Amino acid sequence: MRHAALRRRVWAANLELAGLGLAPLTWGNVSGLDRGAGLMAIKPSGVAYRDLRPADIVLMDLDGRVRDGRLRPSSDAPTHLALYRAFPRIGGVVHAHSPYATAFAQARRPVPCLGTTHADTFRGEVPVTRMLSRREVSAGYEAATGAVIAERFVRRSPDELPGALAAGHGPFAWGTDAAAAVRNMLTLETVARMAFLTLELDSGVRPLPAYLVEKHHGRKHGPKAYYGQS
Amino acid sequence: MRHAALRRRVWAANLELAGLGLAPLTWGNVSGLDRGAGLMAIKPSGVAYRDLRPADIVLMDLDGRVRDGRLRPSSDAPTHLALYRAFPRIGGVVHAHSPYATAFAQARRPVPCLGTTHADTFRGEVPVTRMLSRREVSAGYEAATGAVIAERFVRRSPDELPGALAAGHGPFAWGTDAAAAVRNMLTLETVARMAFLTLELDSGVRPLPAYLVEKHHGRKHGPKAYYGQS
Amino acid sequence: MRHAALRRRVWAANLELAGLGLAPLTWGNVSGLDRGAGLMAIKPSGVAYRDLRPADIVLMDLDGRVRDGRLRPSSDAPTHLALYRAFPRIGGVVHAHSPYATAFAQARRPVPCLGTTHADTFRGEVPVTRMLSRREVSAGYEAATGAVIAERFVRRSPDELPGALAAGHGPFAWGTDAAAAVRNMLTLETVARMAFLTLELDSGVRPLPAYLVEKHHGRKHGPKAYYGQS
Amino acid sequence: MRHAALRRRVWAANLELAGLGLAPLTWGNVSGLDRGAGLMAIKPSGVAYRDLRPADIVLMDLDGRVRDGRLRPSSDAPTHLALYRAFPRIGGVVHAHSPYATAFAQARRPVPCLGTTHADTFRGEVPVTRMLSRREVSAGYEAATGAVIAERFVRRSPDELPGALAAGHGPFAWGTDAAAAVRNMLTLETVARMAFLTLELDSGVRPLPAYLVEKHHGRKHGPKAYYGQS
Repeated sequence: MRHAALRRRVWAANLELAGLGLAPLTWGNVSGLDRGAGLMAIKPSGVAYRDLRPADIVLMDLDGRVRDGRLRPSSDAPTHLALYRAFPRIGGVVHAHSPYATAFAQARRPVPCLGTTHADTFRGEVPVTRMLSRREVSAGYEAATGAVIAERFVRRSPDELPGALAAGHGPFAWGTDAAAAVRNMLTLETVARMAFLTLELDSGVRPLPAYLVEKHHGRKHGPKAYYGQS
Repeated sequence: MRHAALRRRVWAANLELAGLGLAPLTWGNVSGLDRGAGLMAIKPSGVAYRDLRPADIVLMDLDGRVRDGRLRPSSDAPTHLALYRAFPRIGGVVHAHSPYATAFAQARRPVPCLGTTHADTFRGEVPVTRMLSRREVSAGYEAATGAVIAERFVRRSPDELPGALAAGHGPFAWGTDAAAAVRNMLTLETVARMAFLTLELDSGVRPLPAYLVEKHHGRKHGPKAYYGQS
Repeated sequence: MRHAALRRRVWAANLELAGLGLAPLTWGNVSGLDRGAGLMAIKPSGVAYRDLRPADIVLMDLDGRVRDGRLRPSSDAPTHLALYRAFPRIGGVVHAHSPYATAFAQARRPVPCLGTTHADTFRGEVPVTRMLSRREVSAGYEAATGAVIAERFVRRSPDELPGALAAGHGPFAWGTDAAAAVRNMLTLETVARMAFLTLELDSGVRPLPAYLVEKHHGRKHGPKAYYGQS
Repeated sequence: MRHAALRRRVWAANLELAGLGLAPLTWGNVSGLDRGAGLMAIKPSGVAYRDLRPADIVLMDLDGRVRDGRLRPSSDAPTHLALYRAFPRIGGVVHAHSPYATAFAQARRPVPCLGTTHADTFRGEVPVTRMLSRREVSAGYEAATGAVIAERFVRRSPDELPGALAAGHGPFAWGTDAAAAVRNMLTLETVARMAFLTLELDSGVRPLPAYLVEKHHGRKHGPKAYYGQS
């Protein structure tokens, strides 16, 4: 099996996503990138997680050609590729249909930063894309989904804000590798749930003060981070 | 055991329904049809899922006569039969009392198509029936439930919209066989939950644009579908 | 062990209640009655479900005297006794702190009959008591809780409506024996959840028409019931 | 291993917290105090619960110096220490990110005392702190979090009200030891969920009458308590 280690990591991350309950039925997919080799490994389309084997993972180049694999790649592969091209430091991408993040996407609202649980991972609100136009849907729908996500990061850092919502569709998250992307998706779903509950308690709730967002994101990810083990 | 394979498939689909948590206590039933033989296999009435054996599955003809089986069929059997007669290409029917789809049925609201998760399976809103009249309830209640569902499909395709809500009662779903019907019920409950959460976030939320509904339903089920393996 | 069969049934029903998630921590208790012997078997107070043994179940007479057992009975025992005295055909009582039924009790609202899932077990709304007065709380609080429940059944049948909510407190359910009482509590929590979700979707939702309540309750429990096996 | 029994108890309490689902990912920590020895045992920072060993638990003195342990303590350790100094009878502290208690913290609302489930453990509403100022965040953020919690207990008893919400952050709970603190956190999350559901049903719901709060708290914790075994 070519690129067995990459395929195995991406296979394991797909099973982790399903085991966390973030991808009901077959609705979700994880990819990982070997940027040096120029290869993306991704879940095949429409295969149940319980049937998935490491050898089923499809290898593609960054232009979207299948380089190895007997199965079709996820139909969302062009979205993953668009994100890898737009965000040069990421190495893993997840798409899921988890209920709370999908509800924000369907309501076409960003997930506001209402607490430190959110700020620990996302430095500010998780943005929502604009709705795709009829023309974009007919001319390369999946690549356009990646493009409208990238639009939201013109003045935002994808490394400090590792996720976004595709309007009317659902969440995408990313990270340094496939496993980190799955952790960020779990965090996005969890903070979306907390934000939902908070908005129900107080529909006019204010975002966390910026100085507290900075403090929490910084103590985990900043140059003077003191969370975790060195 | 006569028609052992059909009975076993319907038995397994009933256990799948219960295992997914869609049918608390004994509140749910799955049937499957052998259209060539003119036989419906259905769960017996009031039997706990953990006690259910393949031989307990009841065989009925399309006129509602029991053809084989020691137990009474589900009291909802006339609804299943009405759906098989009204929708000529379906081979499986499920009735469940899952919480979110039942809540929409109790609120007498259709499940609006608010996102692509919904559009992947249901080409538009999942309709709700009108409330049965006093006369319909007293003269063949269960068959009338099937009839008011069929009313909603005069201008809709049951193949492209494999489910409906009986007002004040709960969801029904169907498919090409019993297993497909259970998958469609799981999808209906999942998208009902997502729609519920979305409506809580924005009670004025607009349905997904029709061109995006068509795109998502088409990439899975249309003549040029490219989702899944060929 | 005296009355070993009764104790074992009540012990098993307590474990069932906990296993269903209806009684977080030690917040819940089940009793069973042997009306012929004039003995109630009930969970001891403050004992964790995982530590509970059949021999720990306490036996009391209908006047509230402990007849056998090394442990104190549940502090709610006087409520159970009041219900057994007021409702002459019941043989099991459950008190729980399940979230949705408790939320209705805390909101001091009955659980309205919004669907057939409800009507299958409860012939109409599940009532809520009035709030106890200061005097009632100080003079025999737990017995007064049973008395205000009984007040709600002056014109209702406890056999056709096997449960009620104590205002500001939580749900009680009963049945022909301890196991039936637990099933009715599970049903009460489930239909309370469905009613909650329905009210969120439509705060002005109307109750199910009475003729449909009668149909559903009757097809399961009436003289011409045809649900289940004969 | 020095202080092996304390470490083992604190390790077990951390696993209990995670097993209850109160601390998604690594978001939560439990400490225990040996007041005689002047030592606090606490979870190390950023270590996954499944990898945690008793020897990983860090020992600190009440001035915040690490006395034994190879790993960094939880970054929230100064909050724990501030609570042990402010509340002289407690022996365990928990911080968690459970969804309902965190939602109240994010909405900057106390958890109102709406029912007896709440009053059994918390004698009145669970308070929320004020938001920390920019200055407090930059000058010893974690210790300041403990200080603003202590502010809320000038006229409240931490023994009768074993928990509080840090505004925009999440819940803290405490108890006589680490295991009791975890039980109080589970109770706080459970009653926060019940309060959330109650407020959704009736946004103008009134608190439980004070005489019923006193009755329930007193029958469990007062001088004449009669709940549980003597």
